[in-house]
Amino acid sequence: MTITGEMLIGARRHRGGDGAFHAVDPATGERLDPAFGGGGAAEVERACALAWQAFDAFRESGLDQRATFLETVAWNILDIGDELIARAMAESGLPRARLEGERGRTVGQLRLFAQTVREGSWLDARIDPALPDRTPLPRADLRQRHIALGPVAVFGASNFPLAFSVAGGDTASAFAAGCPVVVKAHPAHPGTSELVGRAIQAAVAACGLPEGMFSLLFGAGTAIGTALVADPRVKAVGFTGSRRGGLALMEVAAKRPEPVPVYAEMSSINPVFLMPAALAARAEALGAGFVASLTMGAGQFCTNPGILLGVEGPDLDRFVAAAVAALGGSAAATMLTPGIHAAYDAGVARLAGAAAVETLARGTACSGPNQARAAFFATTARTFLAEAGLQEEVFGAASLLIRCPDVAAMRVVAERLEGQLTATVQMDGADAAAVGALIPTLERKAGRILANGWPTGVEVCHAMVHGGPFPATSDSRSTSVGTLAIRRFLRPVCYQDLPADLLPESLRDGNPLGLWRRVDGVPGRE
Amino acid sequence: MTITGEMLIGARRHRGGDGAFHAVDPATGERLDPAFGGGGAAEVERACALAWQAFDAFRESGLDQRATFLETVAWNILDIGDELIARAMAESGLPRARLEGERGRTVGQLRLFAQTVREGSWLDARIDPALPDRTPLPRADLRQRHIALGPVAVFGASNFPLAFSVAGGDTASAFAAGCPVVVKAHPAHPGTSELVGRAIQAAVAACGLPEGMFSLLFGAGTAIGTALVADPRVKAVGFTGSRRGGLALMEVAAKRPEPVPVYAEMSSINPVFLMPAALAARAEALGAGFVASLTMGAGQFCTNPGILLGVEGPDLDRFVAAAVAALGGSAAATMLTPGIHAAYDAGVARLAGAAAVETLARGTACSGPNQARAAFFATTARTFLAEAGLQEEVFGAASLLIRCPDVAAMRVVAERLEGQLTATVQMDGADAAAVGALIPTLERKAGRILANGWPTGVEVCHAMVHGGPFPATSDSRSTSVGTLAIRRFLRPVCYQDLPADLLPESLRDGNPLGLWRRVDGVPGRE
Repeated sequence: MTITGEMLIGARRHRGGDGAFHAVDPATGERLDPAFGGGGAAEVERACALAWQAFDAFRESGLDQRATFLETVAWNILDIGDELIARAMAESGLPRARLEGERGRTVGQLRLFAQTVREGSWLDARIDPALPDRTPLPRADLRQRHIALGPVAVFGASNFPLAFSVAGGDTASAFAAGCPVVVKAHPAHPGTSELVGRAIQAAVAACGLPEGMFSLLFGAGTAIGTALVADPRVKAVGFTGSRRGGLALMEVAAKRPEPVPVYAEMSSINPVFLMPAALAARAEALGAGFVASLTMGAGQFCTNPGILLGVEGPDLDRFVAAAVAALGGSAAATMLTPGIHAAYDAGVARLAGAAAVETLARGTACSGPNQARAAFFATTARTFLAEAGLQEEVFGAASLLIRCPDVAAMRVVAERLEGQLTATVQMDGADAAAVGALIPTLERKAGRILANGWPTGVEVCHAMVHGGPFPATSDSRSTSVGTLAIRRFLRPVCYQDLPADLLPESLRDGNPLGLWRRVDGVPGRE
Repeated sequence: MTITGEMLIGARRHRGGDGAFHAVDPATGERLDPAFGGGGAAEVERACALAWQAFDAFRESGLDQRATFLETVAWNILDIGDELIARAMAESGLPRARLEGERGRTVGQLRLFAQTVREGSWLDARIDPALPDRTPLPRADLRQRHIALGPVAVFGASNFPLAFSVAGGDTASAFAAGCPVVVKAHPAHPGTSELVGRAIQAAVAACGLPEGMFSLLFGAGTAIGTALVADPRVKAVGFTGSRRGGLALMEVAAKRPEPVPVYAEMSSINPVFLMPAALAARAEALGAGFVASLTMGAGQFCTNPGILLGVEGPDLDRFVAAAVAALGGSAAATMLTPGIHAAYDAGVARLAGAAAVETLARGTACSGPNQARAAFFATTARTFLAEAGLQEEVFGAASLLIRCPDVAAMRVVAERLEGQLTATVQMDGADAAAVGALIPTLERKAGRILANGWPTGVEVCHAMVHGGPFPATSDSRSTSVGTLAIRRFLRPVCYQDLPADLLPESLRDGNPLGLWRRVDGVPGRE
């Protein structure tokens, strides 16, 4: 396929006239062809009008048709072949193996949502049959299902050009729910976005679905995204990115005449609690494991371990020594964009210059543009508690060790943390009681609690939660990874005494779709 | 019990010093004793501190203990006896039969949530077992459950002094989810609130639960409610009331350093579509049924039928004649408060004075203070579409008939409606195709679609949705009535490779609680 630099609006290609921009290869600093035409209000209007036209038809598409569509998108992405990987490498600086893995994850995610759609539990079908003889009042026949919220605006993330971008988790779960999607491509990887967008566009046509259920918009600035979130036909927003960006979209959405939900995944420093017995047993292995997690992908993960907590003493010193050794030898790595690289350097300089923060180690020197050296800092619990700014995420391979006087202080620090995507405990058997006492705090603070692993690496499955209290996300009631993510784009509707032939198929007598349903509250396949 | 005028803060009674206020008997205009002491920042601080202290313990209380608590609240409310009904009558102007029914509904609701808690599906327990031999990467053991969001602020509604007030649906569902509750009592029925609050307080003590899980605050103005929603320990808000009040709370919640969800049920005019064949078959019965629904409880229902749509012609004229006759003979009825009565009169005057709006009928003249005469108006579809102000809810027994040139125009009007709690179709078999074409619009506009009933009367069951798109509610993804209401106060948490004895009981191997769970996505009792 030739990358054209054109947006996709329904079934058409369209070159935007609102300023042109290029992708940049962060590894070389060079502009990549072609030029992409940015869109404006006219393109938002057209994409949203088409999405609205498509909405009623798409949300009532058959479960099998919708699942087949998701599977077709997956096949079409694979069919792009190596061009997709090569372009994503050039636009992101990420290595081949990582992007091939990410493609596998993206395709697997689409297929898992296809299974989820077919299985149909997400409809949460409920039937409370009429009780005509009940006294003092009869009960009507009441049936409930969930329907799609409406067109969804999805913002591609910089750090996962495939799995959290045009055909990523937000798009897949919104489609699964029956929502048309208008994607605002991340300007760092527009060529990757165009290729994947065309895979979706082709799948829409191949599956006989309404063209408006997918559009892909480009724009280098924030105006087009703001216009998209403000459009009255958009009924929900999915975003992964910075706290500033997420907060801006939340404000736009809250100020609409009709406010709409924003699912923004924003900021997390993913605390790791190094419990005493674990440190005593394997401080060196933990130090090496920590650095591997920290530096993977140049540290550009939402779940990167940005702070560590441990009790001062010889075991923690062994951990530090091992981590310093590993990190000191870690190669400088190309970051995703010049802007992200500059922000990383500024964040590291802020920590390095903070009072009572010690620089423990830096990675090896840079040998090219936009490369980042990993950074490992330490401070005391007392300093951390006194300086709220030390909680600010530094996106990239930077981490801060908080030396605590005892386990109780680790819990005090935990209570002062903002909301997180993850919280990790490194523990041995003898730590169980202390961890047990910590868990209620971690549950209140994080969406996922891990023992003896590292937070980077998010499994796409039924039990995953990639979410958490603010500012990790804007809505702790949800996850953006895993099958529960579909629930973000649904709302319940109740049908009272509707004639049988007007009921949606999912609620008809005899259960023609073979769904799990609740009849008088009891789950079953009746 | 003697009503004291004191707030309940945890296990204590406390007289507020921030101004005193009295309830007013709307039927006589007289002040009711005693004086209630309003609270301020200090009381909010104390109630929220106690709620926060109670949170971790209460959210991990056993399912049976929590269910027993809800049942104990129900018994304690019944044990108050006739004093509760008499006080609620005096404070609301509502008749005995209505309040006895409402008490039954409140008690039934608490018991239904007790059943729901015990059954445990709301935990949405999910287990994806480890796959240590998976390639290229093994899968960790991942388990998910839902936990309580945190302390919930509940605002009592004026129009249901029992069922949407201190121990109403918001409180019952928040308790069921494991959330402590701080209620801001509606100042129109403080005595009723105190009696019910003491029933809850006694149940907390009897069940050995932490005192902070319930407090009841008084205040005549909005300051105390604003302070409550702004408190950082409050993690969600339940509100039923005016659009202005709901929007104000949404703004406070959105501007917090940590925004929190607000479930505000605000404004709905509940359209009724009079389809041609139904009108032809039973125009007179529909006219009488409509007036009965409109005037019930002085029209003070969130689901009151505030607009009707029908095709101009002799059948609609028959409907109008029957409705005019019924409404013209309807007795004036005491409204809940002087303020609500004044707002009703102002709203009716606005409609009566609007250009191209015809007054079809008024109820009989008033014979006492705060009485309202029902009102029935008509206009054309063209006028309605041109005047956005005609959609504004007039809380009380006022309704506007929209005369449409044809069925297509009914659908055009439907598309222009704001979000609604309910949409009703009156239909016969010959209307099925037209109703089928209308349903996609109604699904997008309303939380509940009724055929051949009236929207007043909301069943408390599993399939109910008392919710809907903005401005019917602030969050269309939820319902405030029925067992699904528990979901508003929950968030998912994932546990990765946590040692077995640290897992919550709901997620342990062998399913010790006997819950419905998903293992690798498959529902069952494993």
